Amino acid sequence: MSIRKRAAAAALVACLGAAELQAREASPRPEYAFSTADAFDASAVPAYAGDHGDVYARIEADLDAHVAHLQRWVRQRSVSAQDDGIDAMARLVADDLCALGFQEVRLVETPGHPGVLGHYDAGAPRTLVVYMMYDVQPVEPNWRIDDPFAGELVEHELGTVLMARGATNQKGPQRAFLNAIDAILATRGTLPVNLYVVAEGEEELGSPNFGAVLAPWVDRLREADGAFFPMNIQGPKGDVALNLGVKGIVYFELEARGGEWGGPGRSEIHGSLKSLVDSPALRLVQAIASLTTADGNTILVPGYYDAVRAPTPDEQRLVNALASTADEAAMQASLGVSRWIDGLQGREAIVRNLYDPTLNINGIWSGYTGEGMKTILPHVATAKIDSRLPPGLEPEAAYRMIRAHLDAQGFRDIELRPLSGYPAAATPVDAPLVQAALGVFNKYGAQPRVAPWLGGSAPFYQFTRTLELPFVFGGLGHGSGAHGPDEYMLIRPAEGVAAAGLAEIERSYVDLLHALAEDAAQ
Amino acid sequence: MSIRKRAAAAALVACLGAAELQAREASPRPEYAFSTADAFDASAVPAYAGDHGDVYARIEADLDAHVAHLQRWVRQRSVSAQDDGIDAMARLVADDLCALGFQEVRLVETPGHPGVLGHYDAGAPRTLVVYMMYDVQPVEPNWRIDDPFAGELVEHELGTVLMARGATNQKGPQRAFLNAIDAILATRGTLPVNLYVVAEGEEELGSPNFGAVLAPWVDRLREADGAFFPMNIQGPKGDVALNLGVKGIVYFELEARGGEWGGPGRSEIHGSLKSLVDSPALRLVQAIASLTTADGNTILVPGYYDAVRAPTPDEQRLVNALASTADEAAMQASLGVSRWIDGLQGREAIVRNLYDPTLNINGIWSGYTGEGMKTILPHVATAKIDSRLPPGLEPEAAYRMIRAHLDAQGFRDIELRPLSGYPAAATPVDAPLVQAALGVFNKYGAQPRVAPWLGGSAPFYQFTRTLELPFVFGGLGHGSGAHGPDEYMLIRPAEGVAAAGLAEIERSYVDLLHALAEDAAQ
Repeated sequence: MSIRKRAAAAALVACLGAAELQAREASPRPEYAFSTADAFDASAVPAYAGDHGDVYARIEADLDAHVAHLQRWVRQRSVSAQDDGIDAMARLVADDLCALGFQEVRLVETPGHPGVLGHYDAGAPRTLVVYMMYDVQPVEPNWRIDDPFAGELVEHELGTVLMARGATNQKGPQRAFLNAIDAILATRGTLPVNLYVVAEGEEELGSPNFGAVLAPWVDRLREADGAFFPMNIQGPKGDVALNLGVKGIVYFELEARGGEWGGPGRSEIHGSLKSLVDSPALRLVQAIASLTTADGNTILVPGYYDAVRAPTPDEQRLVNALASTADEAAMQASLGVSRWIDGLQGREAIVRNLYDPTLNINGIWSGYTGEGMKTILPHVATAKIDSRLPPGLEPEAAYRMIRAHLDAQGFRDIELRPLSGYPAAATPVDAPLVQAALGVFNKYGAQPRVAPWLGGSAPFYQFTRTLELPFVFGGLGHGSGAHGPDEYMLIRPAEGVAAAGLAEIERSYVDLLHALAEDAAQ
Repeated sequence: MSIRKRAAAAALVACLGAAELQAREASPRPEYAFSTADAFDASAVPAYAGDHGDVYARIEADLDAHVAHLQRWVRQRSVSAQDDGIDAMARLVADDLCALGFQEVRLVETPGHPGVLGHYDAGAPRTLVVYMMYDVQPVEPNWRIDDPFAGELVEHELGTVLMARGATNQKGPQRAFLNAIDAILATRGTLPVNLYVVAEGEEELGSPNFGAVLAPWVDRLREADGAFFPMNIQGPKGDVALNLGVKGIVYFELEARGGEWGGPGRSEIHGSLKSLVDSPALRLVQAIASLTTADGNTILVPGYYDAVRAPTPDEQRLVNALASTADEAAMQASLGVSRWIDGLQGREAIVRNLYDPTLNINGIWSGYTGEGMKTILPHVATAKIDSRLPPGLEPEAAYRMIRAHLDAQGFRDIELRPLSGYPAAATPVDAPLVQAALGVFNKYGAQPRVAPWLGGSAPFYQFTRTLELPFVFGGLGHGSGAHGPDEYMLIRPAEGVAAAGLAEIERSYVDLLHALAEDAAQ
């Protein structure tokens, strides 16, 4: 233990119990030593110099119609978890591609929700695959607007926003991208690059059938030059956070149910019988508790941290740059969080966010959950758990280790039901598509911060592994509230707000396509 | 460790992990050494010899009307936890007492649901307090009949039963008792004993205001000779299980909520943020897990078992008798349970059921509990926990120890919200009221098994402590499904079923009142 760690440990005694401190000293969580203190400098990438005034003017002229396209998309419900509006939304996406002039558009049936494929052949040297997700999360009751599917424009402290489920995750930026295509086609009659659109309706379910969506065209898609996912990644102050990858995920249910091992097998029984009868709910609680330390923050599944790949020198430079500009207070305030785990700050927090797998309870339920008292011993208890997987920790290995740990701890009776699993994805910062995106960001003064990947998960391994393409997800634009209440996308920024409004977002997409085409022409 | 225990421990190695075995060896749960092997002999109590043929004939003649009274009671909803039908049920009880000829009847307002007091002064030497609860548990969806409040007569393998919420817990036997009163008054014009009825509508809520119900008449009630609670305690084969007391209870909610300590304070956030943000759901799980061993069956709250009073010699004789006739397989089958905790059997299971406090999860909930996946980190997690308290372990002490344990384990941030708490109650087997009840049971060949108390809880300390009266709860009659689906009371037994039907139940109540009166006359 270093002197610095000892001092930190001594300071911790004040707020941690001795048992917790001991657990931390014996933590299986690795400490990553950095081999470089250099920081990546995004401002060194030359700003994109192109100017496409005719297209920009078209965007301004059509802006009301462009906003209406976004509203039309969010008004079409498409909650994948509840199969609510899915087919109609898939058709809406396909119809929009046809209307834009895509030569090939097809709906792809899958064992789950359908996908949409589209191809616009401009006869250009470069080809871009554009990924879209047309599904959204379920809605929770505590929105400040009456109907999260009404597509309302709401006055917000940042300006006029579109407040709706899917406004920023992900219908708003996706339709903004198609608006940009619309403006190029209206002015130029063709596109500077060939486009494939690949859209799925199960991203929020963990994309179990995205491979089947890609399958009909997988060989064609592999010939592309890169893949792109339109996304609002600007903060309110105009800065962008570009993440070059994602963590993987396993999402599963754990369930304890009375049976041969004990507990009530048929239905709940009187609570006083706990004296003689095992409790499935307590079994589930104990099984979940065995997965982490008492603070819930270190995973105790043997081998779980060992599989994670340590930061490469390139990644270290990205992390060093992130650490120099991190604004933890702002991020915490936006989340309504008082502090990070263990009071982490600076580079340590960034490394942990990127390189630690997580274990999280998304939901847990058993027995009586209404008002007052009902005295029962429930016969079944269930939890929804997810674990985010950094590069190196594969989903199959994660499931295997969790099952083995439960078995070793005596929880063979706990059922583990996998709902989803896919690995991480990452694109190197020197890929041409990444450099093009950084050039466009620099043109708009967006001061990109670049991270090796995001703490969140998406099926982007389908691009980086299945299609073997560099993959960029991001763009100008600001939104918040994904997966929670009051989701919004900024449409018309208030005076003094630096984040892009819809028109500037669309201009930046026009520039990105031209930057890719011009790079090929050089 | 005795040789016998060592052998048992060796046998356990096959099915328990080493950690679990070690936990058991270090268990804080006491082993109670018995000082006597004698068994209490209930059959030695002389059978009640009285015969009240005129009253019995009245019961037979009015039986259809008597069944209709039971149906009328269960059809009146009275779910205390949901404040559903409570006031109407209180009025119904009061109106019935008036109709029977009780000279004083009053509704008692409380901070919660109202109580009902009634007095029938027969000018008799002996006075009996009759306790009633007019509330019922909420209903769950999985009943085999459409409406648990329809008061349906259903053909069951045991005969014709009344299947309804409250059929056996507790409206059926209570109204059967009033039917018996009705028959005595119809034939004799008066009762052999004076009666007080004290009825509450919050038993299923832990009787928080039962003291307020008793308060107006507490000094009068203290002058009575005993207190009685009509209850179906017969098994299908006709045997009765008479419990001379109850355990106490604490029922509370534990809640973890994001705040200064960490976690999301405002609403749920994206699940991937678990890398940096504490999880209230995992905190709650860890806090509950800290309360018990990994099997959920031994409470780890320091001092919790120490407060429990060891079995007295009288209680040991009752336990020895119970052990000689226990039919665990039948009880397990009726509950849908494969085995008791740790495979316990015989006297060991009985002692544990009576002398161990319990810790049970009645319900737990947090986050997303619907179909499919929603990837969130919930900001709040809640559990409903109860603990049953044997004599000696007081509710105030239980709450204090649980809070102190949570604090010591680092869970100061977990809120503990007491919903209820009251101590155990027990009446000695040699009390005259107990002996009268045993004499009546013996008259009907019901072969009473007598336990020092029940594993369940009820506010009977109000009789044994507040009123300082011997208290008996029980009577002929069979029912099942209390607190669960398909609750029923047997009305007309099928051929060969020994459990009493409604007519015999009512005759036995007639006999009990006369046995008490005749005991006074001797």
